[in-house]
Amino acid sequence: MTSIKQPGEKNLMLFSGRAYPELADEVAAHVGVSLTPTKLIDFANGEIYARYLESVRGCDAFVIQSHTGPINKWIMEQLIMVDALKRASAKRITVVMPFFGYARQDKKGRGREPITARLMADLFKTAGADRLMSIDLHTSQIQGFFDGPVDHLFAMPVLESYLKDKLDLENTTVVSPDTGRVRLSERWADTLGTPLAFIHKRRDLDVANSVKVNEVVGKVRGRTCVLIDDMIDTAGTICKAADALYEQGATNVLAAATHAVFSDPAVDRLKNSRISEVIVTNTLPLAQANRFDKLTVLSIAPLIARAITEVFNDGSVTSLFEGDT
Amino acid sequence: MTSIKQPGEKNLMLFSGRAYPELADEVAAHVGVSLTPTKLIDFANGEIYARYLESVRGCDAFVIQSHTGPINKWIMEQLIMVDALKRASAKRITVVMPFFGYARQDKKGRGREPITARLMADLFKTAGADRLMSIDLHTSQIQGFFDGPVDHLFAMPVLESYLKDKLDLENTTVVSPDTGRVRLSERWADTLGTPLAFIHKRRDLDVANSVKVNEVVGKVRGRTCVLIDDMIDTAGTICKAADALYEQGATNVLAAATHAVFSDPAVDRLKNSRISEVIVTNTLPLAQANRFDKLTVLSIAPLIARAITEVFNDGSVTSLFEGDT
Amino acid sequence: MTSIKQPGEKNLMLFSGRAYPELADEVAAHVGVSLTPTKLIDFANGEIYARYLESVRGCDAFVIQSHTGPINKWIMEQLIMVDALKRASAKRITVVMPFFGYARQDKKGRGREPITARLMADLFKTAGADRLMSIDLHTSQIQGFFDGPVDHLFAMPVLESYLKDKLDLENTTVVSPDTGRVRLSERWADTLGTPLAFIHKRRDLDVANSVKVNEVVGKVRGRTCVLIDDMIDTAGTICKAADALYEQGATNVLAAATHAVFSDPAVDRLKNSRISEVIVTNTLPLAQANRFDKLTVLSIAPLIARAITEVFNDGSVTSLFEGDT
Amino acid sequence: MTSIKQPGEKNLMLFSGRAYPELADEVAAHVGVSLTPTKLIDFANGEIYARYLESVRGCDAFVIQSHTGPINKWIMEQLIMVDALKRASAKRITVVMPFFGYARQDKKGRGREPITARLMADLFKTAGADRLMSIDLHTSQIQGFFDGPVDHLFAMPVLESYLKDKLDLENTTVVSPDTGRVRLSERWADTLGTPLAFIHKRRDLDVANSVKVNEVVGKVRGRTCVLIDDMIDTAGTICKAADALYEQGATNVLAAATHAVFSDPAVDRLKNSRISEVIVTNTLPLAQANRFDKLTVLSIAPLIARAITEVFNDGSVTSLFEGDT
Amino acid sequence: MTSIKQPGEKNLMLFSGRAYPELADEVAAHVGVSLTPTKLIDFANGEIYARYLESVRGCDAFVIQSHTGPINKWIMEQLIMVDALKRASAKRITVVMPFFGYARQDKKGRGREPITARLMADLFKTAGADRLMSIDLHTSQIQGFFDGPVDHLFAMPVLESYLKDKLDLENTTVVSPDTGRVRLSERWADTLGTPLAFIHKRRDLDVANSVKVNEVVGKVRGRTCVLIDDMIDTAGTICKAADALYEQGATNVLAAATHAVFSDPAVDRLKNSRISEVIVTNTLPLAQANRFDKLTVLSIAPLIARAITEVFNDGSVTSLFEGDT
Amino acid sequence: MTSIKQPGEKNLMLFSGRAYPELADEVAAHVGVSLTPTKLIDFANGEIYARYLESVRGCDAFVIQSHTGPINKWIMEQLIMVDALKRASAKRITVVMPFFGYARQDKKGRGREPITARLMADLFKTAGADRLMSIDLHTSQIQGFFDGPVDHLFAMPVLESYLKDKLDLENTTVVSPDTGRVRLSERWADTLGTPLAFIHKRRDLDVANSVKVNEVVGKVRGRTCVLIDDMIDTAGTICKAADALYEQGATNVLAAATHAVFSDPAVDRLKNSRISEVIVTNTLPLAQANRFDKLTVLSIAPLIARAITEVFNDGSVTSLFEGDT
Repeated sequence: MTSIKQPGEKNLMLFSGRAYPELADEVAAHVGVSLTPTKLIDFANGEIYARYLESVRGCDAFVIQSHTGPINKWIMEQLIMVDALKRASAKRITVVMPFFGYARQDKKGRGREPITARLMADLFKTAGADRLMSIDLHTSQIQGFFDGPVDHLFAMPVLESYLKDKLDLENTTVVSPDTGRVRLSERWADTLGTPLAFIHKRRDLDVANSVKVNEVVGKVRGRTCVLIDDMIDTAGTICKAADALYEQGATNVLAAATHAVFSDPAVDRLKNSRISEVIVTNTLPLAQANRFDKLTVLSIAPLIARAITEVFNDGSVTSLFEGDT
Repeated sequence: MTSIKQPGEKNLMLFSGRAYPELADEVAAHVGVSLTPTKLIDFANGEIYARYLESVRGCDAFVIQSHTGPINKWIMEQLIMVDALKRASAKRITVVMPFFGYARQDKKGRGREPITARLMADLFKTAGADRLMSIDLHTSQIQGFFDGPVDHLFAMPVLESYLKDKLDLENTTVVSPDTGRVRLSERWADTLGTPLAFIHKRRDLDVANSVKVNEVVGKVRGRTCVLIDDMIDTAGTICKAADALYEQGATNVLAAATHAVFSDPAVDRLKNSRISEVIVTNTLPLAQANRFDKLTVLSIAPLIARAITEVFNDGSVTSLFEGDT
Repeated sequence: MTSIKQPGEKNLMLFSGRAYPELADEVAAHVGVSLTPTKLIDFANGEIYARYLESVRGCDAFVIQSHTGPINKWIMEQLIMVDALKRASAKRITVVMPFFGYARQDKKGRGREPITARLMADLFKTAGADRLMSIDLHTSQIQGFFDGPVDHLFAMPVLESYLKDKLDLENTTVVSPDTGRVRLSERWADTLGTPLAFIHKRRDLDVANSVKVNEVVGKVRGRTCVLIDDMIDTAGTICKAADALYEQGATNVLAAATHAVFSDPAVDRLKNSRISEVIVTNTLPLAQANRFDKLTVLSIAPLIARAITEVFNDGSVTSLFEGDT
Repeated sequence: MTSIKQPGEKNLMLFSGRAYPELADEVAAHVGVSLTPTKLIDFANGEIYARYLESVRGCDAFVIQSHTGPINKWIMEQLIMVDALKRASAKRITVVMPFFGYARQDKKGRGREPITARLMADLFKTAGADRLMSIDLHTSQIQGFFDGPVDHLFAMPVLESYLKDKLDLENTTVVSPDTGRVRLSERWADTLGTPLAFIHKRRDLDVANSVKVNEVVGKVRGRTCVLIDDMIDTAGTICKAADALYEQGATNVLAAATHAVFSDPAVDRLKNSRISEVIVTNTLPLAQANRFDKLTVLSIAPLIARAITEVFNDGSVTSLFEGDT
Repeated sequence: MTSIKQPGEKNLMLFSGRAYPELADEVAAHVGVSLTPTKLIDFANGEIYARYLESVRGCDAFVIQSHTGPINKWIMEQLIMVDALKRASAKRITVVMPFFGYARQDKKGRGREPITARLMADLFKTAGADRLMSIDLHTSQIQGFFDGPVDHLFAMPVLESYLKDKLDLENTTVVSPDTGRVRLSERWADTLGTPLAFIHKRRDLDVANSVKVNEVVGKVRGRTCVLIDDMIDTAGTICKAADALYEQGATNVLAAATHAVFSDPAVDRLKNSRISEVIVTNTLPLAQANRFDKLTVLSIAPLIARAITEVFNDGSVTSLFEGDT
Repeated sequence: MTSIKQPGEKNLMLFSGRAYPELADEVAAHVGVSLTPTKLIDFANGEIYARYLESVRGCDAFVIQSHTGPINKWIMEQLIMVDALKRASAKRITVVMPFFGYARQDKKGRGREPITARLMADLFKTAGADRLMSIDLHTSQIQGFFDGPVDHLFAMPVLESYLKDKLDLENTTVVSPDTGRVRLSERWADTLGTPLAFIHKRRDLDVANSVKVNEVVGKVRGRTCVLIDDMIDTAGTICKAADALYEQGATNVLAAATHAVFSDPAVDRLKNSRISEVIVTNTLPLAQANRFDKLTVLSIAPLIARAITEVFNDGSVTSLFEGDT
């Protein structure tokens, strides 16, 4: 006998870094599996150490890490986790980054800049990632930065079903807070069946030193406005946009975004703003101190869990965000 | 004596495929060099054959090809030319594609689509390209598709200096023909100091089967409108945009774009449209039959020539499109 | 429970480009599967768009395309199809090219030429191909151009079993139409048990300007001659070879080749030649207009289908062209 | 039906080069499989030819070769075997090198040296190896030279269980024959619960021309000493170490090592030395002529066989050398 | 004229991250050049932004960053700087990391660990590094982790020349604080012409629960001892070693190391220890608060500067640490 | 000053392995440079050690090795030399292999064979080779196995000019000793203006067990025959070919080949054959014992030297084997 034959087997395993284990736990519960016990510590000088406490040979590994602060540390931890999986003979490694760190650095705006989003994709490839999974990439082109399959999930259905229940759509306008997000807002307007508007930062030619003014383009007077963005970072743009909308006669302004980056002073700005409700998902952790009354956080875990299950079963992730088979 | 030392030397050489040799000749004239004689023929079954008629060893090669129709053939020809340069010991190979073919396929809009723009970047890398040079990429993120330096040139200064002389800027509005180009139009509006508007394709809820209507968002009544796009392909969008603008009271509509793709029936549409002038550059060849009275073609050759010279001399290409050093 | 286990599964799927869907259909019928529905269209400027209409996750994909004219377009289409499969998480991608385009450019005949056959192999690797399958490569060395497994199938058994029934082998000579195919013809002569001859293009030293003459080397007088080649392109060489054979007293001349490239003016030449029968396979499509009375086309589909089935089942493709296990 | 589904299957196959087929046979017997029949011959000019006599498609291949003399030939043979497996569609290829050739060249000791151990790892990767398996690497860092999983097995338990039965551990000292192996010896001392010593080659400052003397650091007087090394090559160091130990009052000296390289004049030196017993494993072949009375050879085959079985079954190789799960 | 020829030129440029600009400035001063002005900032969510304020086209770039805390941030910054240089057409990029972060994770000590030092080397390669330069790597094998030239500099001459002036070498013993550094200490003992000792952590068999005791192996009584290590991290090992030496009758204990990692509570431990002097270099920054009376810091900048100059001039870096040409 | 500028410089250095230093010396003399002093030794167990005794930073390196027996050792030595050059910062590395080892294994003749010639090309690429230079490759397609420039030199002019002086071309026939070399022989026949013939191994159908007979195809009676091959290995084919030619009435038979592999029993066979003169070059060493009266050895060193000089100077190597510029 010159060979030993055995039936093949697939083996799903879930791993989490230390950035936001609560989300990973929630995903795991939806998938119906426990996170693989993993030792993750910082050495005295800050170097990260990783070790899996169970065999991972031949497994179909999903490594979840939220790219929250300290962002470089958590990205490095995820890279190191991937390296350890590769060297421990995992069969396939899918990197799950609910929020793709450095996604905004996706082009050279000026000469001699890096394209850090591409660099990130390459670093994960080098470490051993076979596939990436992420939600609402800052630009869809980032899918093309990775040399392999990317599962690009959309949080819009999650946010939308919440909003549909709350709003009188007849009297609502979807608003892009700047000119770079108009296409995204259009998709929302299409689904909700509302008009579209956007804020344009224009030089005020009547004033010296070309101060920029926020000009509202589109009809907002007497209407409820929903500001749409993929992420809220320091919340400066979105709060100024809300002010401009109220100035133009909007009766109510809400804001919806997938990624609650909420860097300082986002929370203060949002609390003190005239925005009546801020709706986000939990792709990134939100400390209790960063939560406030008019903030609504919807869970993204069911979406990630379904995507992981489909990928493992060779089902169609496409069905997670489109109507077709 | 265990070594022979000689002073190093740089040696710029220019090559052109067969897609649009007139542009390459014009570039060469501005650079102050002749195109390297190259044999390029089709074999009986359509396979392309390439051979350089002079030594290219150690040269700093720039290979120009316009990705016009038949587009797959000309892309393949450029790939083959790069392979021949690599195998003939060219020192550095810069692929010059004034219009980047397949640039619009820069993401997976739906599941199970390719990302052909990334594929193109990879094919050129594989063939042997060290660098890419292109003009007004459909999205800036495409720079990140190539694993190496990309010189991304902007035609805006060329088009703009022409328009500034023609227009009464006080009474002009820059208009994006759809929601995907608003950011680009904003850059124009900023430079020209004009207001900004855009066309939004909205479902008409009053009509069954959700017919889409072109809604103008922004102030255009009584004003001259300049529609801005990176390319004009079949001209359907831009002509409908012009109609919508006139309906909203625009007094005059012009259109400016870098790449005159002009696929059928673009020329007929533009001729018959109410657009008063169409301004484009010659990144792509325009057959005499495709030229018409109200078409203005500005030459892009000086821009490419300056960029090539700067790259060869290790100068700063940044200065070609920015104000800084 | 830290993992979910499931039995592994293999999933064969067949895909076809637009170059010659009839062959792909025939192969599919032999395999016992339908082609996966695929949307393939040309955009207005000639860019190709591809999308699979069913999930391909985890499948063992075979992508069939005949490299017929317009050859660069169909090669590019196949590359794009591979890219889409890779990004849609196909598990393994086998590129099936019954005729390997650019196979004749497999070396630098002179300085500063490309090696386009190697380039093709690299382009498919870059796009995501794991394996290649092809029939009667122009030279066997092309197998070595691809960095991975190549299934090199031989059509000889198909052609041979047809010829054996027709010919009086006692009175037959196998003839190579030029010096580059003598080895191939020898394999035929060996199998059929016939003598071997070849045509040698020699400078006629009696004539000025060194005109070349076709010299027959070997015994052909009074015999049936079978000209053997891997492909018939413009048919110039093979028709002149037939003339030379008749001049040297051959009583009958047939021609057999795997690939009917049939570029202009092949059909006219063959029709008007003294060759009594031309036997080819359908690795490439033959328009009805290109078929003529003395042409016999044998189907290659069963061979490809068996090879695909063996590859899928981890059987031995070797058995398709050799006598051993 | 657009796809054919079949259950997946794993298929273990074992291959051996010609360097030491007896070990491979022994491993095969423990695994419970026969070596795949393979034709391996030298052509007249020394080029190696390889061919597998059974189909290897889709198999999980383990290729065993001992890097014994002529070492470059056997390494090349293993590389060629891997290439043939890759091109014959083996699914996964694990290179088993019980002794990792060139492991001692794992750094640049001086400028302008190669790092041949890294080169070896890269050559195997290039040929097609997915994984490496080896025993007692000269330095553990060599694991990091290979871009993929490395199963690093330890022979210590094999040697140790033999020694434990023989020695009065109360009266034993573990000795490192030079300063580079102290860490390794410490691991032994820890497990056996004995003191530790080492030999330090020191310049004798009392003598001209700085002759080096072997200085024993640690307590050895009146004790049994076990010299520990990963390999015994020419046995010069270890024999001199034994002399130094006896000079310092050791009552008995044994030597234990994993790899019996035994280059000339190792056998003579060992025979004539005062070392009372030499214990090694059979990672490398030992000709009958190289065996001598006080030599004990323990078989490494069970260890390799268990590791191969675990790797095939996705079990935990870690358990082969650690106490944890 | 089909080409433009110009003399070649080399152009050295120096860049520094934000981890330890003072060292970079000192190096620059020795090289005789200024650091290239570079914008490096943290965005609100911690993402790093980099931009060079001068053209770097065609330059021979040296990018200095000390891998101090927060170590993952500074490593990521250096990776991003390399990406930006690559995309801005730097000709050659040398990454200078005086202390190689994660160097201690250079092997899998146990199963399912990463080999992070190899990962680091690969990440820098991926980002675009052509070469690495570092000082006193934790193990020399790390040179082999990078696929390209590594300039491995030795600080020993710097430390040694200082010590030679201070010590009575007749009465000095070089001591390795553990068994892993004995080889390094031997090199020192060789150069200084002193005896060698080491500390061995042994299980105390007389005590339950196998407490480990520090056993001194070698002669130290009545002598001055110099503890040698490549780095001092938390200083636990080295302080306990000093205690053990004094217990064994050492009259004076000094410690010398290249890299002053000095993680908490290193400074307290060293201050309170019986070590009379601690000699280190400034490969890593030492805050004023971390300096103490018996600490001597020698500058490594001249060594780095000379190496950079030699690399730029194609001189011999070998001469920086060896006696030969 | 943020940069230091210096003129660029090229620096040719020549290196030789130990296989055939006499040829390297001869080449060096023609180039006008000495071989760089290099330490190359075998360790006791056969591992090769290499070290360059002078700085090679930034040099344009040419590494010469003849792939003679023991062939695997010399190939490995050349790989190791390339690795050492890469790690010592050579700027460009050209591997010079006058005879390309394993060139005959350039395809899979049967299933489950390696393509060792491709493997060799890949191994050299992996070790760090930028370019290859070789003479009369067994098949020209091997050029395509290397991912980079290959300088393929032709020895034909060297052999031909010798033969032209000796032969009465009016009465000469060029003969291919088998069907695989007919194309090569045709090139000779073309240049010399002679007829062409070949030997065909045919099954003798009159004899049982299908013994093969050497059949001469073409006119040889009463003529001088020159057998042409790229190499003579065991000389079996060529000696039998000579016998067949004499049997068919040839009056004189000579043999010319580039590579004198001369494996046993080539020398005996040639000495004892009826071949009147054997003309070869010295791409491979010929021990004095292997030289015999009717053997003529022409030096290939001038050809290699000119090629190296041209490559260094960016001249046209094409001119070494073609008439064009």
